Amino acid sequence: MKDEIERMERFILDFVETLGYKGVVMGVSGGLDSAVVAGLLSRVMRERVLGLIMPERDSNPESEKHARLVCETFKIHCEKIDITPILSKMGIYKLQPPAPLVSYSVKMRYALRKWKELGDDVFLKDLTGDMPDDYRKGVAYYRAKHRVRMCVLYKEAEVRGYAVAGTTNKTEFLTGFYVKYGDDSVDFEPIGHLYKTQVREIAKELGVPKTILEKPPSPDLIPGVTDEFALSMSYEDIDRILMKMEKGESLDGEDPNIVERVERILKVAKLREIKSITIQDWENFKKYNIQ
Amino acid sequence: MKDEIERMERFILDFVETLGYKGVVMGVSGGLDSAVVAGLLSRVMRERVLGLIMPERDSNPESEKHARLVCETFKIHCEKIDITPILSKMGIYKLQPPAPLVSYSVKMRYALRKWKELGDDVFLKDLTGDMPDDYRKGVAYYRAKHRVRMCVLYKEAEVRGYAVAGTTNKTEFLTGFYVKYGDDSVDFEPIGHLYKTQVREIAKELGVPKTILEKPPSPDLIPGVTDEFALSMSYEDIDRILMKMEKGESLDGEDPNIVERVERILKVAKLREIKSITIQDWENFKKYNIQ
Repeated sequence: MKDEIERMERFILDFVETLGYKGVVMGVSGGLDSAVVAGLLSRVMRERVLGLIMPERDSNPESEKHARLVCETFKIHCEKIDITPILSKMGIYKLQPPAPLVSYSVKMRYALRKWKELGDDVFLKDLTGDMPDDYRKGVAYYRAKHRVRMCVLYKEAEVRGYAVAGTTNKTEFLTGFYVKYGDDSVDFEPIGHLYKTQVREIAKELGVPKTILEKPPSPDLIPGVTDEFALSMSYEDIDRILMKMEKGESLDGEDPNIVERVERILKVAKLREIKSITIQDWENFKKYNIQ
Repeated sequence: MKDEIERMERFILDFVETLGYKGVVMGVSGGLDSAVVAGLLSRVMRERVLGLIMPERDSNPESEKHARLVCETFKIHCEKIDITPILSKMGIYKLQPPAPLVSYSVKMRYALRKWKELGDDVFLKDLTGDMPDDYRKGVAYYRAKHRVRMCVLYKEAEVRGYAVAGTTNKTEFLTGFYVKYGDDSVDFEPIGHLYKTQVREIAKELGVPKTILEKPPSPDLIPGVTDEFALSMSYEDIDRILMKMEKGESLDGEDPNIVERVERILKVAKLREIKSITIQDWENFKKYNIQ
């Protein structure tokens, strides 16, 4: 564990120094992954870290509190930029009915009901785009938030000559559980090689506060929709199966339904990985990924 | 030439149909590259193309006229979304002095003077980030425009179940002449395999209007700064040298100063390609690209 932390510390310092960045900007969401990245950054370059808290109209009010707790715990400078006015000018709130005066718990119940209406495989439908028109608006609504956050992170990074650090983990990358050109779009990924369950172990070692360690992981993009609710699996199950697959180990002891679901997710997650594909790359992609 | 056009047409149709998109959204800037992409799209799926014109406070007023001309020529549906209010809420205009009431030609003279103050290698400095603090604001200012355009393109694509088509060419990719997570961030790149000079030939064949064919290429991000001004070379020179390099041909007949400049640009352009790099990828990157 200590070795792994030191390895990440060296990576951060080496990356930043080699490319001549003066420091690092990161988004602090109040969740586990960004808490770990904040913890790592604070160990090697505390005075040159800017943590951005970027709530919007429909964010869980708890998230900002937890984000501030992270910045206080690791003593990094933080600033809050409310992205509501930007999303509003982009017309994002016209896509989703909940009114501004409705409480968070009402928004949550509404979103969960909508989600369930679409059946048990919304996440797979989201990845493939196979959904009714009505739901497409919901997709555009939630994804715009992470994309606007990316724009804000880069603006703040560029005026300072800083790099943007990402907070995406390996489980999210493999399952497509990220917003294309949103939270996946950064300069470097300090925890991009770690599965979610490994990030949790590192978090304990770094001293991430208990409230954050123990709360259910959530992208906080759609009120009430947590990671494991969207994926319909626990991170323990996904990670164990993904690790076995990576090592080429037998999946005999696993629930075949869960294995089948992981396999389907991995397959459609390949679609999210398609970025700026040219003619030649398309031919290769088809050969290896589409039957 | 006809073969190349047919090849791109097949790519567009195959990509869109294989992934189940209902159509394509693209940004129409009024320049050559987007005119060619609009022309190609119109040939295979005219009724399912949305061309977005996204001017902002400091855009060249000519650009919108030319963008409309492109949409009329190729008979594609277009919509205008002024991104000024979004950029304004992001604080982008606070980064750059020109006042809203100043004419375009005054903004242009101001920007060119600033650019020249930084010496003859602003584009290289831009790629490496090696510049005075004052100029960093200018970098954040111009890059935010293409990033916000990306967010708007994806919003409009997602509500319709459309793909986002890019308009970046091979010369731009190789020289780093694009905004990271801006105009480079799309679903597919119909002309990503063509050098700029090849795009120009295709444009003639497709019937791109003469005004657009003949005007100097410009990203229209900083008033007055054209592509060739920023690169300090003509596309004829760059492309000829890049093509010789690609084929492994001798560069003996070329101006050694231009060759040296192209080589330096290619080297630093590698830095812009670094995206969301993890520990393992960083080790490989260093091995092959940094001495």
